[in-house]
Amino acid sequence: MILLIDCPDQTGIISQATGVIAESCLNIIKNDEFVESESNHFFMRTELAGDCDRVALEKELKQVLPKGANIEIAKTENKKVVVFATKDHQHLGDILLRYEYDELSADVLAVISNHNTLQPLVAKFGIPFHYISTKGLTREEHEGKILQALSIYNPEYLILAKYMRILTPDFVSKYPNKIINIHHSFLPAFKGANPYRQAFQRGVKIVGATAHFVNNDLDEGPIIFQDVIRIDHRYAVKDIAKAGKDIEKIVLAKALKLVFENRVFIRGNKTVVF
Amino acid sequence: MILLIDCPDQTGIISQATGVIAESCLNIIKNDEFVESESNHFFMRTELAGDCDRVALEKELKQVLPKGANIEIAKTENKKVVVFATKDHQHLGDILLRYEYDELSADVLAVISNHNTLQPLVAKFGIPFHYISTKGLTREEHEGKILQALSIYNPEYLILAKYMRILTPDFVSKYPNKIINIHHSFLPAFKGANPYRQAFQRGVKIVGATAHFVNNDLDEGPIIFQDVIRIDHRYAVKDIAKAGKDIEKIVLAKALKLVFENRVFIRGNKTVVF
Amino acid sequence: MILLIDCPDQTGIISQATGVIAESCLNIIKNDEFVESESNHFFMRTELAGDCDRVALEKELKQVLPKGANIEIAKTENKKVVVFATKDHQHLGDILLRYEYDELSADVLAVISNHNTLQPLVAKFGIPFHYISTKGLTREEHEGKILQALSIYNPEYLILAKYMRILTPDFVSKYPNKIINIHHSFLPAFKGANPYRQAFQRGVKIVGATAHFVNNDLDEGPIIFQDVIRIDHRYAVKDIAKAGKDIEKIVLAKALKLVFENRVFIRGNKTVVF
Amino acid sequence: MILLIDCPDQTGIISQATGVIAESCLNIIKNDEFVESESNHFFMRTELAGDCDRVALEKELKQVLPKGANIEIAKTENKKVVVFATKDHQHLGDILLRYEYDELSADVLAVISNHNTLQPLVAKFGIPFHYISTKGLTREEHEGKILQALSIYNPEYLILAKYMRILTPDFVSKYPNKIINIHHSFLPAFKGANPYRQAFQRGVKIVGATAHFVNNDLDEGPIIFQDVIRIDHRYAVKDIAKAGKDIEKIVLAKALKLVFENRVFIRGNKTVVF
Repeated sequence: MILLIDCPDQTGIISQATGVIAESCLNIIKNDEFVESESNHFFMRTELAGDCDRVALEKELKQVLPKGANIEIAKTENKKVVVFATKDHQHLGDILLRYEYDELSADVLAVISNHNTLQPLVAKFGIPFHYISTKGLTREEHEGKILQALSIYNPEYLILAKYMRILTPDFVSKYPNKIINIHHSFLPAFKGANPYRQAFQRGVKIVGATAHFVNNDLDEGPIIFQDVIRIDHRYAVKDIAKAGKDIEKIVLAKALKLVFENRVFIRGNKTVVF
Repeated sequence: MILLIDCPDQTGIISQATGVIAESCLNIIKNDEFVESESNHFFMRTELAGDCDRVALEKELKQVLPKGANIEIAKTENKKVVVFATKDHQHLGDILLRYEYDELSADVLAVISNHNTLQPLVAKFGIPFHYISTKGLTREEHEGKILQALSIYNPEYLILAKYMRILTPDFVSKYPNKIINIHHSFLPAFKGANPYRQAFQRGVKIVGATAHFVNNDLDEGPIIFQDVIRIDHRYAVKDIAKAGKDIEKIVLAKALKLVFENRVFIRGNKTVVF
Repeated sequence: MILLIDCPDQTGIISQATGVIAESCLNIIKNDEFVESESNHFFMRTELAGDCDRVALEKELKQVLPKGANIEIAKTENKKVVVFATKDHQHLGDILLRYEYDELSADVLAVISNHNTLQPLVAKFGIPFHYISTKGLTREEHEGKILQALSIYNPEYLILAKYMRILTPDFVSKYPNKIINIHHSFLPAFKGANPYRQAFQRGVKIVGATAHFVNNDLDEGPIIFQDVIRIDHRYAVKDIAKAGKDIEKIVLAKALKLVFENRVFIRGNKTVVF
Repeated sequence: MILLIDCPDQTGIISQATGVIAESCLNIIKNDEFVESESNHFFMRTELAGDCDRVALEKELKQVLPKGANIEIAKTENKKVVVFATKDHQHLGDILLRYEYDELSADVLAVISNHNTLQPLVAKFGIPFHYISTKGLTREEHEGKILQALSIYNPEYLILAKYMRILTPDFVSKYPNKIINIHHSFLPAFKGANPYRQAFQRGVKIVGATAHFVNNDLDEGPIIFQDVIRIDHRYAVKDIAKAGKDIEKIVLAKALKLVFENRVFIRGNKTVVF
């Protein structure tokens, strides 16, 4: 059982919260706290052993915590997710392999794509594949069809595994803080299209990848995880792209793990990751 | 004020310890805990704002913590240190610069060396330099002279900044867990002499540096911090040595900062670093 | 076409070799040279555009190069490989995905395992799986059966993707410098069994992975590629193992790419990698 | 002696250039080539042992190389440099220490600053310090005074070691491709002022440093070297700044080494670094 609390900071807060936990006969395996000093906001993530009445626990915590505290008692079961992809197989393949061996902390309910290129890959793993072409459809019509497909599965999270379409604010608003994207640059460098070409033209010596939540500002959502690799003048655009794939898929996998293990708080445009 | 606690783990320990803190009118700025699961041992480091009767605080903590708990209420003033060096200037130079601008969390009281090579460097910073030659002296006599010099300063820590002599168990026992060494390899690879030559001969693609506490097993003391750099076939031994200097001095500086900011617990042969 | 030359160094060698190439109407796309200064040995790898009589080219090169020069005109077609695995799926899964999308520079002819655990994974990719149990067999009998299976495929390279058996010198001698292993530590630290447990017990702050050619000294073969990740006191042995998997599979994939693209020279116990 | 050639690529160019070298009785210690494929431009850097008539060598190379080839026969003596600084001591201190022990491949002729804060540091190393205040001066008048000071020294390179003033195009044009700056971000992310504050506000998980040549587009000059460090939510702006100093000074030192060892070609907005 994992307890997530965030609220305005005040003296004695750790003692009071952990006191309630101790009275509930729960043992703390791991406790992380952080106070964001600019806004004086308190974050706590607690891994608990033992069981208790969750409703009662939440009620008692509410009594000792400041007004307006966010309290979440998260289950540790696998999250339910749907993966979006286009033509790149690396990220999807990596996710499917991890799911196959239950290393994702999530169940992949389905894959949705605007191309049918990846259908054979998904078929290997016996997962439903929805090919939803954009042909002849407005953006809204296309997203309407996607939402229809999603309604079958009712997923908790959407993973954009190199899904090469920009989602409308309307769509994004249906999954607030629940859509995770991998961008193939070290954001905020090289936002938008063709980041590897941009990196080549700027002559950088390092390129990166960024996993982030999607909000309505393109490539501006809260960053979950980033990593980089070193390149040099010998890398043409296609070499950078190739070299980038491995780091992209590792960054996405790491970010998914952090989110699905309930380690990520979102506050404004930023994350607190325990 | 920084509070350091380690003791056998038990239920309710965080609540009780932080409860005592709250009652003492101290505010927790930052709290880190860890339970080492193999030995079920609890570690907590707390940064506190405000002031209180330290003796009373320690007494009250003792009442709620398990028997045999180690409780330390550390001052945040600069530590008092003496640096040992031989001929390499990079690490010593870096330490002296950091001290000059008060970035070391320590005051360098003196430098002791078995050569006089570095005397001019130390003189620039107006710090006493003790040249204690080994000439004609047994190891014990040499260390006797060093201890005599140290007795002037009564340092809390000794820093071995590429000091190329092995200290006797007798000497080490006088500064238990208080001597910090930088070894120019990624320990436990390449223990002992000439690690860069060993690395060259083995043909490794990465070399590293390790800062550790000194105990009586050569290069086997608790590791504080490590880092690595990538090399390749083009690096001759002297190139590896050159490339290694920068990472060595950064690793040593980082380790010193961790220790002097009271972030390092030692338990057996290992460290817990918050 | 890729030309690989290594020989004792002498003045004018680049000019003469590239002169022969120019006369053969081949264009140099990329040229790398290196002189190992301790033994004064010259290495050159040349990527060539255009076509020519390979036998004639080799003959002409022999005339201008020092006696005893090794000259290889490598094809750029995919190598033929057989993968050995035991129970870990991550490395094998990664290799199969790369092969499926022709990103491996190699064709996976078959997988051989001493357990049948990974059969379903291999089946997804339509590749022959040979389950060769050790049950009731001596080491020699077991390897005899493996060699029998290999005789069907006649592979150029064997990949040990976490194959948890030690091969006999006799077996290794049949594939000299053609067996590639992934060892889950930063060699030469933590040779032998359970490197992650060794790392945990030593309290290192960084762990790594090493891809190397197999020779008769266990974990002592020429190193192809290494990489590391940072860990800390919070990592139990199983956490280190988990965290290590991603870096292991990336290190193996990178090493395979280097070898299969003819970028690796072996000399004694070391490699030159262009 | 180091030979630097860049010119349009053509078949046989390596053979011809190295042929001229061999005829001049020079031995190639190390040779690096690269063809930038988008513009089909050839780069070669050759380390040579032995001596010869440089004028004759250049003349003979001109005859075999394509028209318009850039040929430079660089001396390996220390470069002459002047360092610009403002108030930050870390980068300047590191440079002075390296110069003191002749590890910079350059001689520091003087330090120029718009503040007198760093005068005591520079004095330790017996180097002229020019405090040129901006008080009551227009930008042009201030730079006029700087140019007057520089005229004493006639330096080959200017190092901006956290010099917090923007130079005018007029000033920059007097030292084309000869001014090296350290920017405290991973460019092109966070151009302009306060990059660490920008990084904090964006919530990135990695920050970096970039050493580059200065041209008239602020923070847009050719990048020489970059490196990064990992940060997390616990880093306030001042913590990022502190953590960044070490990587900044290492990145600057590395870039200086590359430039002063004649390893860097500039072409347009990019560098080729051997």
